[in-house]
Amino acid sequence: MKRIYLDHIAATPLDPGVLEAMLPFFGENFGNAQSLHSDGQSAAEAVEEARASVARLVNASPAEIVFTASGSEANNLAVKGLALAQRAKGSHIVLSAVEHPSVLNAVKSLEKLGFTTTLVPVDGSAMVDPAAVAKAMTAGTVLVSVMLANAEVGTIEPAAEIARIAKAGGALFHTDAVAAAGHIPVDVRALGVDALSLAGDQLAGPKGSAALFLKKGVRALPLVDGGVQEGGRRAGTENVPAIVGFGKAAELALADLPARAEKARALRDRLLDELPARVPHVRASGDRTRRLPHQASFLVEFVEGEAMLLSLDMKGIAVASGSACSSKSLKASHVLLAMGIDHATAQGSVVFSLGETTTAEDIAYVLDVFPPIIDRLRKMSPLYTEFLKEKTR
Amino acid sequence: MKRIYLDHIAATPLDPGVLEAMLPFFGENFGNAQSLHSDGQSAAEAVEEARASVARLVNASPAEIVFTASGSEANNLAVKGLALAQRAKGSHIVLSAVEHPSVLNAVKSLEKLGFTTTLVPVDGSAMVDPAAVAKAMTAGTVLVSVMLANAEVGTIEPAAEIARIAKAGGALFHTDAVAAAGHIPVDVRALGVDALSLAGDQLAGPKGSAALFLKKGVRALPLVDGGVQEGGRRAGTENVPAIVGFGKAAELALADLPARAEKARALRDRLLDELPARVPHVRASGDRTRRLPHQASFLVEFVEGEAMLLSLDMKGIAVASGSACSSKSLKASHVLLAMGIDHATAQGSVVFSLGETTTAEDIAYVLDVFPPIIDRLRKMSPLYTEFLKEKTR
Repeated sequence: MKRIYLDHIAATPLDPGVLEAMLPFFGENFGNAQSLHSDGQSAAEAVEEARASVARLVNASPAEIVFTASGSEANNLAVKGLALAQRAKGSHIVLSAVEHPSVLNAVKSLEKLGFTTTLVPVDGSAMVDPAAVAKAMTAGTVLVSVMLANAEVGTIEPAAEIARIAKAGGALFHTDAVAAAGHIPVDVRALGVDALSLAGDQLAGPKGSAALFLKKGVRALPLVDGGVQEGGRRAGTENVPAIVGFGKAAELALADLPARAEKARALRDRLLDELPARVPHVRASGDRTRRLPHQASFLVEFVEGEAMLLSLDMKGIAVASGSACSSKSLKASHVLLAMGIDHATAQGSVVFSLGETTTAEDIAYVLDVFPPIIDRLRKMSPLYTEFLKEKTR
Repeated sequence: MKRIYLDHIAATPLDPGVLEAMLPFFGENFGNAQSLHSDGQSAAEAVEEARASVARLVNASPAEIVFTASGSEANNLAVKGLALAQRAKGSHIVLSAVEHPSVLNAVKSLEKLGFTTTLVPVDGSAMVDPAAVAKAMTAGTVLVSVMLANAEVGTIEPAAEIARIAKAGGALFHTDAVAAAGHIPVDVRALGVDALSLAGDQLAGPKGSAALFLKKGVRALPLVDGGVQEGGRRAGTENVPAIVGFGKAAELALADLPARAEKARALRDRLLDELPARVPHVRASGDRTRRLPHQASFLVEFVEGEAMLLSLDMKGIAVASGSACSSKSLKASHVLLAMGIDHATAQGSVVFSLGETTTAEDIAYVLDVFPPIIDRLRKMSPLYTEFLKEKTR
């Protein structure tokens, strides 16, 4: 059976050009980028070239890019690093209720060290109101963290506006752009952010490749102390092949972004328009217009996300239910709950995320296969039986 | 010119079998190991197989292995994670003066949070005296960290004895086995350690692959908070190809260890015996018998390490001078200074580290090339001119 992979937010297949760029650094050019001999220097040069490519993707300077091993690590470095570096100044953090678990849980760790947090609520489409951020800020607020786009419901947040508010209030602003970078234009200057997380594995680059943009002059305490790598901001032997792959992926993403986004948006819109039309009690989640181009998410009443996911998998279709990083935990998504969706409905979340290889035929197949799956699952659902009984009463 | 790579402690070339094992996970099996669909599940299975292989290398249980992105990250997770988890119990840490910068600097970060540290001195061969560790411990000591082997001078520390002392004093014991694992037998049960760091890139595995052994029941606060990966001990999308490569490298290392060590030891001994015999004012550093089999390090008087390194590089030979992670910083090595070596002599450090592809011809070439290089460098050295003048006076 042909596999149709529609879970690009969880993992993207590696672009063949990216693998090609990486291979020499598994072979001949295996040196440690910190070594002074030629084997080391050729690795170091490749790392710096990749740093320049990643910087270009977000309009940063190369020296402002700190490579990390995951988007989660970049988020932890931003949140903990920026908060701890400003401890003398204050200990209050403002963040949205729909942040990634790596941001939310990093802040929970900071709370154990004496920091306090205000979680800003979101509206029914997971949109953060900048005015609510302004209201949440106090004289002791040192950091505001609101994501650029939410992977789970696709909503693009008003990050630039929130950055201005944070700055006016004397706080630093971090945005998690892991789901956004490579899919919508990301410009750290236009956004006015102090720190921005991005990950290579979201843009056809390798796993283990990610970065934190840290604006020149902004200090973050390291998570990993040790050697002089990454300007002392993140110790540990550079993962040269992953960094080189990230650089190549960033270069490809920047070159093709508008065309790829347009293609994805057209296919995604078919899902957003037609799935709710073909299946009753299905609605799209998140904002329709301020939305990641490759993301289509839905709430399907009277069925459970896991059952949908496994049924689609048996038909060859890979999708996500709830946030990618907590999908194995199968708790109701904190994002959906923050949007005011009740527990039962939140269990019926399904997320399609498209990639470069996604075709119109793939989408047509999903539109054909999805309705009978939901029909079958609902027939087995006590909740649905109950609902029908209520209705006919 | 043929390159002779003798800097395996900085980076090892990838074993071809390791790359072969990794490639499918860059291609077809690119899924996120947290995804419930089949693409995710095949990745998750590969991660668990690799975890079992890495566990076997150090005689641990798979659930005791936490994958990280570098040895430095493993050391930081151990030191910070174990110390912070025991904060209610005490805040004193004992470590040796010759630890890796990632251990020393992790402890410096803890000092800012109120921890205190005792640095245990070493003898002239960088050996830690277990009695000195016992003496350094107080009622508030929660963690002792002494490495298993020192990369820079090759010395193997009495870790098992120190582990017993730490345990008797009610503290947890961590050992940095990054330089040791894959080169000497490492058995977490025999050593009696609570935590042990190891890295894939030290044993012909990929960069970006490392792990912390955390004994069952021993709690460490995470460095990277977020999702449920690694049992909640280290969040972030699993770097599946790197983990798979690490697993394969661990399997190969375990199978071949005695034979490879024997071969390396024989070649290394030629360097240790003949270099000081061929060049005056050269002596081996570190312990001769309790020594990593693939490591030969020397102190060369009246020349600078950087000049030796670059001269050897021009002859096609890659070596290190000082610790791999601070080689670009070119400060005198803290290890050599702790051994009581004066600043000037410590500048003349050169480290040869052998690998599986190292041949007797490579060593013979080094023995031929090294003496005239030193001779030439000394002729340009004001210190040597001074020394000769003193001598003839």
